[in-house]
Amino acid sequence: MDLHDLTRQLHISGTSKIVMVVADGLGGLPREPGGQTELEAASTPHLDDLAARGILGSSLPILPGISPGSGPGHLALFGYDPLQYVIGRGALEATGIGFELEDGDVAIRCNFCTLDADGNISDRRAGRIPTEESAPLAVRLREVKVPGVEIFVEPVREHRFVVVLRAAGRLAGQVRDTDPQATGVPPLEPVADDPASERTAEIAREFLRQARQLLADQPKANFHTMRGFAEKPQLPSYREVYGLRAAAIAVYPMYKGLARLVGMDIVGEAQTLNDQMDVLKASWNDYDFFFLHYKYTDSTGEDGNFEAKVQRIEELDAAMPRIHALNPEVLIVTGDHSTPAYLKSHSWHPVPTLLASDCCRPDPETRFAESACIRGGLGLFQAKYLMSLALANAGRLGKYGA
Amino acid sequence: MDLHDLTRQLHISGTSKIVMVVADGLGGLPREPGGQTELEAASTPHLDDLAARGILGSSLPILPGISPGSGPGHLALFGYDPLQYVIGRGALEATGIGFELEDGDVAIRCNFCTLDADGNISDRRAGRIPTEESAPLAVRLREVKVPGVEIFVEPVREHRFVVVLRAAGRLAGQVRDTDPQATGVPPLEPVADDPASERTAEIAREFLRQARQLLADQPKANFHTMRGFAEKPQLPSYREVYGLRAAAIAVYPMYKGLARLVGMDIVGEAQTLNDQMDVLKASWNDYDFFFLHYKYTDSTGEDGNFEAKVQRIEELDAAMPRIHALNPEVLIVTGDHSTPAYLKSHSWHPVPTLLASDCCRPDPETRFAESACIRGGLGLFQAKYLMSLALANAGRLGKYGA
Repeated sequence: MDLHDLTRQLHISGTSKIVMVVADGLGGLPREPGGQTELEAASTPHLDDLAARGILGSSLPILPGISPGSGPGHLALFGYDPLQYVIGRGALEATGIGFELEDGDVAIRCNFCTLDADGNISDRRAGRIPTEESAPLAVRLREVKVPGVEIFVEPVREHRFVVVLRAAGRLAGQVRDTDPQATGVPPLEPVADDPASERTAEIAREFLRQARQLLADQPKANFHTMRGFAEKPQLPSYREVYGLRAAAIAVYPMYKGLARLVGMDIVGEAQTLNDQMDVLKASWNDYDFFFLHYKYTDSTGEDGNFEAKVQRIEELDAAMPRIHALNPEVLIVTGDHSTPAYLKSHSWHPVPTLLASDCCRPDPETRFAESACIRGGLGLFQAKYLMSLALANAGRLGKYGA
Repeated sequence: MDLHDLTRQLHISGTSKIVMVVADGLGGLPREPGGQTELEAASTPHLDDLAARGILGSSLPILPGISPGSGPGHLALFGYDPLQYVIGRGALEATGIGFELEDGDVAIRCNFCTLDADGNISDRRAGRIPTEESAPLAVRLREVKVPGVEIFVEPVREHRFVVVLRAAGRLAGQVRDTDPQATGVPPLEPVADDPASERTAEIAREFLRQARQLLADQPKANFHTMRGFAEKPQLPSYREVYGLRAAAIAVYPMYKGLARLVGMDIVGEAQTLNDQMDVLKASWNDYDFFFLHYKYTDSTGEDGNFEAKVQRIEELDAAMPRIHALNPEVLIVTGDHSTPAYLKSHSWHPVPTLLASDCCRPDPETRFAESACIRGGLGLFQAKYLMSLALANAGRLGKYGA
């Protein structure tokens, strides 16, 4: 029996509201021995008030030592075991640009590449062709036609674009990459790894044949490879496993896409944190659960900009009263992983997490920071259990067994 | 997907060094209510310095309440789930005396026993015959010849010895013990539990037939039983699952043997801790990972000698600067289990663990001791996750998912 078997069986309806604020890459590290982390250095009076009323802990997105990408990090927060539910690379790329995958679609990450006169790859990324040159070429590939197949070609960035194949009857995604991971050799043919994927491989071969003609006149991007063939991941919905009407309030397509995969509605078109708070307020009566994504704690961490991350944390803190004013029964602040400015990358460190409700059993900690979270009442816990804690604190989970 | 599936997929190469110091049986207990443990009573300025720079935690070798033997305890520290990877008793006995098992070998623990005139067992341990009498008898059994089979007979201690069978084609180890676990009855015949093990059972029967003749003139040890038939355990190597060139620096054969099973090289012939530090320095450039085993915290605990265990901990502390001088990127100090002098045995108590690196997110604890480890940032964690933490802190693990 897994966690969703339990929540499916035990969830009960109610009028309570849950808000989960995900400050991307929230956890940090000190810059120097004995120093403070970004969160410790920030002045966060509102988050500290919440910490005093609430319960703290450190969440492990995957397993000790494992640094998550955004996909697995968010799946864990949404309560989906990130080692059980794997989002294929193509599907994640499509999700990341906001493409709405349907059941039976196969999504493919493509890289423009350069072929020499013999048809061998001389540059696997077409000289990292700039987006303004590559995007029109991706659009040109929309001319590829395969009977009975709906084909979507979407530019991404530089040498990258996405192809999505859709056909009557489901397509299967067990097809091998065509990137030989080397130069001086020709690209590989797409080969199916199971009979169900033969049709996908066939469509991909025809796509590549036409693409070669359409790109023949190009000096740099005269062909492309296909990688990470992936079906739309089959994730049970929030409605089904938790009985929640869920809304995602995010600025960036990737996070909207991830939320859509678990059946959340994407609400509003917020561009700023203040917009997001407006959307939250405006949609308050229509949903039970709100996922509010805040990107800048991650991007400043990735940039290695400690001071900027501190400032972004303080901006988030300043917005907290707008959530508080709505009186959610459960308010969670956490991250999908750590992104210490010191490392300039996602990291494996546990994520500071706070949960406030009127029945959360507060711990003695009064500061929202890594060191306090170590001593917090939620302890060191797997992120995938945050949703069952949220439901319980919201009075939305019945008793297991009599 | 298990931990090794992840590390296999995610490990990246680098030049960083990891040192894991295993103080056998490190964890302890107070002698009287309100007292200190051995580690708390010891003066450990160097370990405390490391604790202040590093992150502490308590590791669970197996599961709460389960006291591990040396085999499972070390497998867990090496990152191999000790409930998934089981080392058969015969293989552990062979490993413990430094015998290098090969794939396809079957190792058997043997006990000299006494048969009465009717061929019934009158003493299952041949009166616990002393080693100086039993070892020559074990050597005499090397006269046993079975065509097509290479046979090794190795004395152990008192009534115990080891037989290893090696033949062209693999031998299988599903053969039942011949010890009837009772006196007044004859020994059992070795019986195969599957067809693949028939040949092993046949060889064992022939071995026993000849052994009975070779020992017929003995007053006490006139026969022997065979127990714990076991193949060499199939453990993936450190190189494969972690991408590490690993060295074991140990004094006792058991720990060298366990390290060899996971593909570590056994380096040096150290007899003292100081020797071990010399070997560490001398082999520094040839390896990425160093397992340094320190036995005496366990043996003094087994003796119930609290003061001696304190002293042995202080000796280890005094040697720490020699490791520090080599500047490993990651330095871990832990144990394979607890051996409280109060209990005179291995115990189930979590093991004090410290990890120091420049990106470990230090916790506020500044003393390497059980009570501080309870409050440490690593929390209470399963020992099998220590290796993924080590790799992450060494910058040797990539990101899971995008």
